[in-house]
Amino acid sequence: MSFDQNRIRWNGWGPRDDALSESQWRWLADALAMPALLATPPRALEDIALPPPRLAAAVWQQFRVFGDVRQDNLARASHAAGRGLTDLLRLRAGDLSRAPDAVLYPRDEDAVLALLRLCAELDIAVVPFGGGTSLVGGVTPLRGKHAAIIALDMSAMARLTLVDALSGLAQAQAGISGPELERQLAAHGLMLGHFPGSFEFSTLGGWIAHHGAGQEATRYGRAGDWLQGVRMATPTGLLASGGSRATGLDLRAIALGSEGVFGVITAATLRVHRIAAKEDYRSYLFPDFAAGLAAMREASRAGIPHTMLRLSDAAETGFGRALARAGRLFDLRARLADIYLEIRRFDARAVALTAGFEDPAARKRFDALARKHGALARGEDKDWPARRFAFGYRRDTLLDRGLGIDMVDTTTSWSKLPDMHAAVSSALDHAMRKNAPREGAHGLVLAHVGHDRHDGASLNFTYIFPRVLDGELAQATAIKQAAMEAIVAQGGAISHAHGVGEDHLPWMEQEKGAAGIEVLRGIKRALDPKGVMNPGKLIP
Amino acid sequence: MSFDQNRIRWNGWGPRDDALSESQWRWLADALAMPALLATPPRALEDIALPPPRLAAAVWQQFRVFGDVRQDNLARASHAAGRGLTDLLRLRAGDLSRAPDAVLYPRDEDAVLALLRLCAELDIAVVPFGGGTSLVGGVTPLRGKHAAIIALDMSAMARLTLVDALSGLAQAQAGISGPELERQLAAHGLMLGHFPGSFEFSTLGGWIAHHGAGQEATRYGRAGDWLQGVRMATPTGLLASGGSRATGLDLRAIALGSEGVFGVITAATLRVHRIAAKEDYRSYLFPDFAAGLAAMREASRAGIPHTMLRLSDAAETGFGRALARAGRLFDLRARLADIYLEIRRFDARAVALTAGFEDPAARKRFDALARKHGALARGEDKDWPARRFAFGYRRDTLLDRGLGIDMVDTTTSWSKLPDMHAAVSSALDHAMRKNAPREGAHGLVLAHVGHDRHDGASLNFTYIFPRVLDGELAQATAIKQAAMEAIVAQGGAISHAHGVGEDHLPWMEQEKGAAGIEVLRGIKRALDPKGVMNPGKLIP
Repeated sequence: MSFDQNRIRWNGWGPRDDALSESQWRWLADALAMPALLATPPRALEDIALPPPRLAAAVWQQFRVFGDVRQDNLARASHAAGRGLTDLLRLRAGDLSRAPDAVLYPRDEDAVLALLRLCAELDIAVVPFGGGTSLVGGVTPLRGKHAAIIALDMSAMARLTLVDALSGLAQAQAGISGPELERQLAAHGLMLGHFPGSFEFSTLGGWIAHHGAGQEATRYGRAGDWLQGVRMATPTGLLASGGSRATGLDLRAIALGSEGVFGVITAATLRVHRIAAKEDYRSYLFPDFAAGLAAMREASRAGIPHTMLRLSDAAETGFGRALARAGRLFDLRARLADIYLEIRRFDARAVALTAGFEDPAARKRFDALARKHGALARGEDKDWPARRFAFGYRRDTLLDRGLGIDMVDTTTSWSKLPDMHAAVSSALDHAMRKNAPREGAHGLVLAHVGHDRHDGASLNFTYIFPRVLDGELAQATAIKQAAMEAIVAQGGAISHAHGVGEDHLPWMEQEKGAAGIEVLRGIKRALDPKGVMNPGKLIP
Repeated sequence: MSFDQNRIRWNGWGPRDDALSESQWRWLADALAMPALLATPPRALEDIALPPPRLAAAVWQQFRVFGDVRQDNLARASHAAGRGLTDLLRLRAGDLSRAPDAVLYPRDEDAVLALLRLCAELDIAVVPFGGGTSLVGGVTPLRGKHAAIIALDMSAMARLTLVDALSGLAQAQAGISGPELERQLAAHGLMLGHFPGSFEFSTLGGWIAHHGAGQEATRYGRAGDWLQGVRMATPTGLLASGGSRATGLDLRAIALGSEGVFGVITAATLRVHRIAAKEDYRSYLFPDFAAGLAAMREASRAGIPHTMLRLSDAAETGFGRALARAGRLFDLRARLADIYLEIRRFDARAVALTAGFEDPAARKRFDALARKHGALARGEDKDWPARRFAFGYRRDTLLDRGLGIDMVDTTTSWSKLPDMHAAVSSALDHAMRKNAPREGAHGLVLAHVGHDRHDGASLNFTYIFPRVLDGELAQATAIKQAAMEAIVAQGGAISHAHGVGEDHLPWMEQEKGAAGIEVLRGIKRALDPKGVMNPGKLIP
């Protein structure tokens, strides 16, 4: 059992430091056409008044039978929001009006089942809570007309419960975090291989609940691929499902992407692998986006084994290099490298690709394919291990200096991908200019393509903009909305790996169609007839 | 549009001949401890009275707007049942009491949508009908309390509608048959690769509706793997879904395994491949079942590319060899081969494995692995192309001589597979003895393992027994029930690739759990509130 809330800061990401030098801040201000970037520190928890909890003492006593219960400010604040941009803006501004009335830590599956029955009876809304890293408002407590709302923190259910090495299967409780799951599997020589950007803090249950995809999903699969069985406690009872079969609806699909609106995922059976040989991360530079995309698509189609291909567009490639350079005094080596690239005609259109391989022969096959598309193999990508989980830390750094930063992701087919990239980049650029804090200021749109699969890949857009300090929520919402409208207009998915939550709700009917929404409502009525599970999410 | 019902015989499989010699019949009689196997021909359609159709002329006229309508005896008889053993026993005995009142051939998706609305309004039950090859009672018209029941034959919706070669995607209407789909894709240099035993007659829509798996599912995927998008017409409206994404419930899961109880699958987007180099089918002999299983599991886990590994157990291996030998006069070559195998100590425990490869290097890797497990590589399996779709023809042959023959399949993990094999084989053996037409007579249980995947494989049992001619339906049902009870007791799936239909309904609550059944009912209420879609199937 863990009360430990220093796993993630109540109003930000993890405790690790990330800092930019003043010369980097100056470069960034210039890049956004801002005169300066002033400090915008968050409010301290001690200075914020929380609404009084609505939970009667009698109910608290009933809850304590099933596990620990907390109602202190730190616990409530730590479960008041996910980690999307608007979440962070609210938390930093001291808006804790959405904090849950209490935080419960159920000790086992039976406790979860009993709690859900009790909450349905007492009309108490329940927000299942894993790592709390949702980017789309998936864990915001929205009480609505319910009597009260609680967060159901799964951190006390975090054990590896079964290993079947012969079948390559393991079973674990849903509250286990990424690092802890891999650590416990490693004791058996096994691994799962699900590494989303939130890996350090997110949980197995959360990965299933939003149907996520890790950075190495091409090799190890997205949640729907590695999930061989799942158990979900609902107000109606336990939903349990096995793997691959032809017996009507695959019940795994009910848990995958359920985002807590049907029940609480309590345990999962996972496809696990012998720990791979040390992974080799390589960096390539392609003359342009089209060449990089072609190499990626052909590698996927030819079945050249790889754990990951991550292609930055020209903007993301240029941003990374420029920001790094702004942090250095004169660096002869870097300057010589730049001159070499100019000679080789890698100009502003050049794009970087990071590739991961477990097999040297596969890496050689990819080298040849990349060369065919004009690429320069730049050797080991030493920076990747430090970079892969850096987004959350860097976001806090930028938020501290008046900037906004957010991500949207989508997915489409190879043939539609270039148009999607252009349309969403352009929509974000326009929206950031239109919603800028001063005339002429603008934003940056950095995109990368990843998770290559047979028919297409994902597109992930990171955007950075100077905040309108007296209207930052409306500004952030308007910019995101522009991106979403462009995605929908291009026929893409409204999310590739982030989920729906509260934030993507306006586009769910376009995503699923009227009949699809009726299906979601039909399942909701069957499993949660009182509507207490994570209200205001996923289902319009 | 096709009225062509010679695609499959109204009371049997296709028109192709299959025959056993009298010496083979004699061997078979001995093997079943029967004195002789007498002819039991089916009744002719002309001699059978069908119940009068319940469809008013006014309704017929309304239907004709949406496509052709037939009420003649051949059309009704051809849609009166699937192709499970009890279906065939009923049809051959002249029981057409379950024939639909009419057969409709809708011309497009809008016609299907309009028809379903009309049928819901008029309380006419609808059985979606693709190839009609269901092994589990999936297309039996069960009128219940409805005013009438019609079969909705999809054969007029059989076009390939879109090819996106860059993305490796194709879209086709659901009524297209296996051979026609592959023929039309081949014109673009593409293939799907879904080859179930029913391939010659079954349809795209049927493959999705029962969530099937072809013989080469390891390479080309089962329906849930190759299905990238699907459209399903329901009484509530059209359900349409795209591919891989994180936006709540994946609606493909609603169509997969839906068996017509929610709506009619009208079109699908498929993952397609460049046509492979000529496939190489190889035969291996392993000293015993455990050795063959180990080689199969290790090949799967090591990622040795193969299209198929199909491991017969000792009974199936021995049966095939013995029946072939019974058909030959003295054959020096065969006798020498037998002597060679005896010298090499391949005795009655020996098991045969058929493997398919597209890549010679992969075949060599498998050769080495097989040798490690004591196998003899027997070269090309020349017989496989003739054998792979032979079951339906052979079944008719055996039914003509007083025998029963049926199949059950299941799937489980590698670690549970040996116990499952033993338990189901034993349950079938006991049930066939207990339900034999005379003292001492018994049956044959032939099993094979296929569809290897990371965590396990499928197990397919074919069983042959002498029929109790005056109680053959009860006998067939009792034997199948024994197999199903053994599967459920071992924790296996109640079907790996055949579906649920009417026949597996008694085990659905054990398969899905009470909450799972509530989910199915909730979706049913949302999409088919009047309950007209394929009543009596899938949902208890």
